Amino acid sequence: MADNKKLVEAITSMEVDFAQWYTDVVKKAELIDYTSVKGCMVFKPAGYAIWELIQSQLDAMFKANGVENVYLPMFIPESLLQKEKDHVEGFAPEVAWVTHGGLNPLQERLCVRPTSETLFCDFYKNEIQSYRDLPKVYNQWCSVVRWEKETRPFLRSREFLWQEGHTAHATAQDAEARTIQMLNVYADFCEQVLAIPVIKGRKTDKEKFAGAEATYTIEALMHDGKALQSGTSHNFGDGFAKAFGIQYTDKENKLQHVHQTSWGVSTRLIGGIIMVHGDDSGLVLPPRIAPTQIMIIPIMQHKEGVLDKAAELKQLLSANFRVKVDDTDKSPGWKFSEQEMRGIPVRVEIGPKDIAANKCVIVRRDTREKMEVSLDELEAKISEVLTNMQVEMLERARTHRDSHTSTAATMAEFAKNVEEKPGFIKAMWCGDQACEDLIKEQTGATSRCMPFEQENISDKCVCCGKPATKMVYWGRAY
Amino acid sequence: MADNKKLVEAITSMEVDFAQWYTDVVKKAELIDYTSVKGCMVFKPAGYAIWELIQSQLDAMFKANGVENVYLPMFIPESLLQKEKDHVEGFAPEVAWVTHGGLNPLQERLCVRPTSETLFCDFYKNEIQSYRDLPKVYNQWCSVVRWEKETRPFLRSREFLWQEGHTAHATAQDAEARTIQMLNVYADFCEQVLAIPVIKGRKTDKEKFAGAEATYTIEALMHDGKALQSGTSHNFGDGFAKAFGIQYTDKENKLQHVHQTSWGVSTRLIGGIIMVHGDDSGLVLPPRIAPTQIMIIPIMQHKEGVLDKAAELKQLLSANFRVKVDDTDKSPGWKFSEQEMRGIPVRVEIGPKDIAANKCVIVRRDTREKMEVSLDELEAKISEVLTNMQVEMLERARTHRDSHTSTAATMAEFAKNVEEKPGFIKAMWCGDQACEDLIKEQTGATSRCMPFEQENISDKCVCCGKPATKMVYWGRAY
Repeated sequence: MADNKKLVEAITSMEVDFAQWYTDVVKKAELIDYTSVKGCMVFKPAGYAIWELIQSQLDAMFKANGVENVYLPMFIPESLLQKEKDHVEGFAPEVAWVTHGGLNPLQERLCVRPTSETLFCDFYKNEIQSYRDLPKVYNQWCSVVRWEKETRPFLRSREFLWQEGHTAHATAQDAEARTIQMLNVYADFCEQVLAIPVIKGRKTDKEKFAGAEATYTIEALMHDGKALQSGTSHNFGDGFAKAFGIQYTDKENKLQHVHQTSWGVSTRLIGGIIMVHGDDSGLVLPPRIAPTQIMIIPIMQHKEGVLDKAAELKQLLSANFRVKVDDTDKSPGWKFSEQEMRGIPVRVEIGPKDIAANKCVIVRRDTREKMEVSLDELEAKISEVLTNMQVEMLERARTHRDSHTSTAATMAEFAKNVEEKPGFIKAMWCGDQACEDLIKEQTGATSRCMPFEQENISDKCVCCGKPATKMVYWGRAY
Repeated sequence: MADNKKLVEAITSMEVDFAQWYTDVVKKAELIDYTSVKGCMVFKPAGYAIWELIQSQLDAMFKANGVENVYLPMFIPESLLQKEKDHVEGFAPEVAWVTHGGLNPLQERLCVRPTSETLFCDFYKNEIQSYRDLPKVYNQWCSVVRWEKETRPFLRSREFLWQEGHTAHATAQDAEARTIQMLNVYADFCEQVLAIPVIKGRKTDKEKFAGAEATYTIEALMHDGKALQSGTSHNFGDGFAKAFGIQYTDKENKLQHVHQTSWGVSTRLIGGIIMVHGDDSGLVLPPRIAPTQIMIIPIMQHKEGVLDKAAELKQLLSANFRVKVDDTDKSPGWKFSEQEMRGIPVRVEIGPKDIAANKCVIVRRDTREKMEVSLDELEAKISEVLTNMQVEMLERARTHRDSHTSTAATMAEFAKNVEEKPGFIKAMWCGDQACEDLIKEQTGATSRCMPFEQENISDKCVCCGKPATKMVYWGRAY
């Protein structure tokens, strides 16, 4: 077990230094690598495979909700970006500018898309003429660029992968309904697939998207008590439509502006998976998002029949699961550590004695529960273990979140909670941005959302004491 | 049928003006739209869905061949692009340069990747230490940018979608084997999935990729007799490894340079599908790549039971096929034209009389064959029709190509064939680039490839009359 220890020692304990633990896991689980392009990362096979599983499962949910995929250019002419005033103010300071094509300077600068509202508007302007052309419910999977100063793997990088849905509707009601519909898709996806519980709510005006009438969000809580904004859905009303002149003829033959939405999630979700489920042995992946769900590790693999049996089990299990055999020449202890580091949900140990007894040992990654299982029941048992693990990981994350959610009726209480009980703080708010700013200044906590499920903690704003209009989730955030 | 005619009249006949026919189909089948970014296109749902089917089927073939997906940054620092001399000379004139990040000028310009050899080399340099780390067989699906002056939908645009595989191997033999292996994957994919027959061969030095030791290609012939380079696979030997210092320790503990390959296909393949299979009624899609394989068109849909029956058939057929019902308020004739324009392989017509007789009419898109089919046999019959259509479209394309392939033993014959028999010309070559240049200058035909299946048409070079070393496929090309 000496070499086993060696691999694990390379990780900082999460209680000692959570940020360092995170970086260690990302690197040791071989998810990501740095590059010579500052702030840009390489998604290695283990990291990209998680994104592929996010894509394929979320895309199926999109299609079941009537979404069609398209692809728009990565470049936005400067004049197009400038058409909607709030939007350009929000994004211009952090875009990358292309000024030369080949050997020649461009007549007009192009920015690399930080998000594609302006391009979709330019496209919809020509696509939409009549009410018959509505709704448009389009999405694209692509990468976007934002020139961030501080970067962290998955959480904040200059280029990141995401999907961005952009829709156009005949009425304000239709747009609002679609905004909420997609927020619910995100919430269901996070809970059912990623085993991450989320709070659904609306952003304050201060925190909303540049150019949006309303931004809705799902907020998750990480192991260290910091919040992660995990997906957003925006209702633009007819603001962009007016700026870009997107009009349609309604059934009464009158010209109307369309109402629009956009919504997105990104590779940031992978950071969320790591920080919600990981432990001091590395990554822990919920079965539905694990590129490899079962790692078969042969014991005394040089003995006759062991590797054959491992291959036979792999064949059997591959019908319903994503399975690999680790038949490298490393020691079993080393292989155990690697499987744990990579977050593979179930390990199957099989050696000569097991084979003789027609059994094997299976170990569940999250609880480390060890089970002796008859080979005749292996498939059924693993299916049960994976199902339970998926459900219990969500429950455990929910318990953690709830036990790290407090309430505050006064600023003193608020400040104390921020320091002593890191997590969400529920507190009342008057609706004035001055209070929001002051809370951030004094505590470092920002408003995460005004949850759909409101509670009445007190009648007064936690900050100024004036009458409260909303209960807000607050917290320090990534 | 008046409105039916109206839609079809909008397309130029391919015999009258093939280029205009192509543009008409691309637009009327709603595959692509132009944007206000010169040379960049929007992939509309019908166009992007074809790419998704290419991606999913080709990606499954990749994975069956041991390929792992990754994602590398879209930006390449100028100094990195310059490390391999031939490579930078080939690409520097046509890249887009990012010079500003946010409000500040960058210390070093970044180009938007035109292809990612240099980034993969920079990545592999750190990833590869020992023979145990080899081979690396990585691929990425992404978009790339080349600042083209003349652009055409799918065939040539400033930004396009593709995949690029990049591999590193211990030996020259392994690299050559992988280069050929992936070329064969491309050829199988084109023939079996896209129903496009291809010639496999090697590019001449003049036509090979910037930085490659050898470039292999698959070449297809379009309906108008012009060639389309449809996929390439490059063997770099250890040239990039030496430029970037990518070394590994072999089993004898000696430092060795790796040997590398790269290979790619792009959205250009969609242009190939259009130009190989299309006709004067629009697009014709091979069933395996058709986003909608069956369009059910109700006749007299206002009559009771017709839409219900159409929905019932859709439900039945959806178990095995991609099916839609056109229940819009357009006339049946208009719907027929649209289904044909969009290249949907099979149309099902169902009206009150059909329902009473427990039958329907099915029409095959490529041959326009009409069949009355009992509803009890519909599923089996459609399965048969789609299978036959897939096979026969490949056969028809092969027959067309073979009947548009000629041989030339002299330059007079060569020049005559180029003008009178547009297509591939097989002719012998001495191996001297001067002859290749002269042929291009005099006829507009370029060397497409030196096919693996060589024939001896004569002993002499078609151009200079000196002893020939290779039989070459020549042709005008997209």
